[in-house]
Amino acid sequence: MSFQIEMQEKTAEIECIIRSFLPEESGFAKTMAAAMNYSMLAGGKRLRPMLMQETYRMFGGNENVIGPFMAAMEMIHTHSLIHDDLPAIDNDDYRRGRLTTHRVYGEAMGVLSGDSLLNYAYEVMLNAFALTSLTDRVIAAMKVMAGKTGIYGMLGGQSVDVENDGKPLTREMLDYIYKNKTSSLIECAMMVGAILAGADQNEIQKIEQAAQKIGLAFQIQDDILDVTGTDEELGKPVHSDEKNNKVTYVTLVGLSEARKQVAALSEQAILILESMNRKNDFLMELIKELIDRRK
Amino acid sequence: MSFQIEMQEKTAEIECIIRSFLPEESGFAKTMAAAMNYSMLAGGKRLRPMLMQETYRMFGGNENVIGPFMAAMEMIHTHSLIHDDLPAIDNDDYRRGRLTTHRVYGEAMGVLSGDSLLNYAYEVMLNAFALTSLTDRVIAAMKVMAGKTGIYGMLGGQSVDVENDGKPLTREMLDYIYKNKTSSLIECAMMVGAILAGADQNEIQKIEQAAQKIGLAFQIQDDILDVTGTDEELGKPVHSDEKNNKVTYVTLVGLSEARKQVAALSEQAILILESMNRKNDFLMELIKELIDRRK
Repeated sequence: MSFQIEMQEKTAEIECIIRSFLPEESGFAKTMAAAMNYSMLAGGKRLRPMLMQETYRMFGGNENVIGPFMAAMEMIHTHSLIHDDLPAIDNDDYRRGRLTTHRVYGEAMGVLSGDSLLNYAYEVMLNAFALTSLTDRVIAAMKVMAGKTGIYGMLGGQSVDVENDGKPLTREMLDYIYKNKTSSLIECAMMVGAILAGADQNEIQKIEQAAQKIGLAFQIQDDILDVTGTDEELGKPVHSDEKNNKVTYVTLVGLSEARKQVAALSEQAILILESMNRKNDFLMELIKELIDRRK
Repeated sequence: MSFQIEMQEKTAEIECIIRSFLPEESGFAKTMAAAMNYSMLAGGKRLRPMLMQETYRMFGGNENVIGPFMAAMEMIHTHSLIHDDLPAIDNDDYRRGRLTTHRVYGEAMGVLSGDSLLNYAYEVMLNAFALTSLTDRVIAAMKVMAGKTGIYGMLGGQSVDVENDGKPLTREMLDYIYKNKTSSLIECAMMVGAILAGADQNEIQKIEQAAQKIGLAFQIQDDILDVTGTDEELGKPVHSDEKNNKVTYVTLVGLSEARKQVAALSEQAILILESMNRKNDFLMELIKELIDRRK
């Protein structure tokens, strides 16, 4: 089976898993449920749940317990997108070619449905205790989810990004923002997969290191594509960073050095994963694809 | 010891517990930590953590495991206040005589620090697993926290309130909003106290029923005070509901009937609690005080 077909099949499977955990659009609060589902079904690549599931498989995991965590992962990611798009932050009207949640349901519902997705992620994760007798793994996985998402993870990165919007950034600060805003959720996804499958501390740490490099490479590649890509390829306007005077890896170190970094980070990540004597060819291919992507 | 002095001492103790779980204002994300702490230390009555702790004591609880849940409870409540005050929802500049969080730290940080408090609440709760060997109780308590906070609880109530702002409301809809927006967190606080202390299913259910009545009585008393109180007593402008054309219990059923309901709900709640052969005189007094309050 080709990688592309395998990818399609796996995405369809993930889609079903995510849908099975969405709230019903009934009762008094049905509008908020609809707003949550609108943003959850806006056609994302499901990259984080896929990395989670494939890392889980890499360590031999094959139980249902991964399902609620995959759905929760996507809910947390989506909550951050809804709030990022709000007029108070990025003020975006469109995401992936569709109107953003607050443009369809109003700004108040944008705030509340984002909150509700974040909270629902925990409600969904707590279901995992009923699916396994390995309680300690679920607790450890939830701790990683909370830690990598919050002030010492994604939200911390977003707050520093927002606070320094349009200001000059040092390399150290940009590293902090990328590591937290982007890499944190990639680390979270892969670590949770490893933890739930019973990886040991040493393995979990290696997964964290590899995921951090993957996240950074992914984000730097994003900066590169904003300079070198076309609107058609990306499905969004290019050169937006330049127009917004945004400091990126490309503006800080130049295009050629940025490309070298992507290659180096990618190679290091693959080396770490290959050193583990756990095999998942699809995961390796997925990571290469992610980093070398043209869109 | 008089009730007032006991209340002061208990509030001071709760204050210390809450402070011990707040994030440090250091590192790159220190501004967001400061925004979280600003709102957490804005001088609330700590009613929900107090109800939680007293219900915990009522069922014989005397361990540290209640601490993270008390702090998390107040974080969730505070997160909802920060987001409620945003321009997109109530657009309030002041709360308890101080500038609201977004007026001090900007609207973007208002959104993100609210998110961060909600997420941090779960991070803090997950610490509770390290404080007890009674894992099942912590899981059950977390499930109640997530359920009563989210789309089937507080956030559901808020969404319906926001969606129907300025529109006529049926009694059924107002009941739904009050039950979810206000009672949910009171139910949550008292149920978590009972669960962590080892109350049985029947007891937990009775606590939920009593708490629901307390929450409703509390909210209706709020409506009454908006009509009968003075600005000085309340520390906020009275008659705001009337000015905002807000449907309340008083506008729906009249002042006299609203008063009767407060009395009836309060009596029912006390009867339920007294029927349980679990004694906590302070809790009984606290509940009476809450419902009969003049501010």
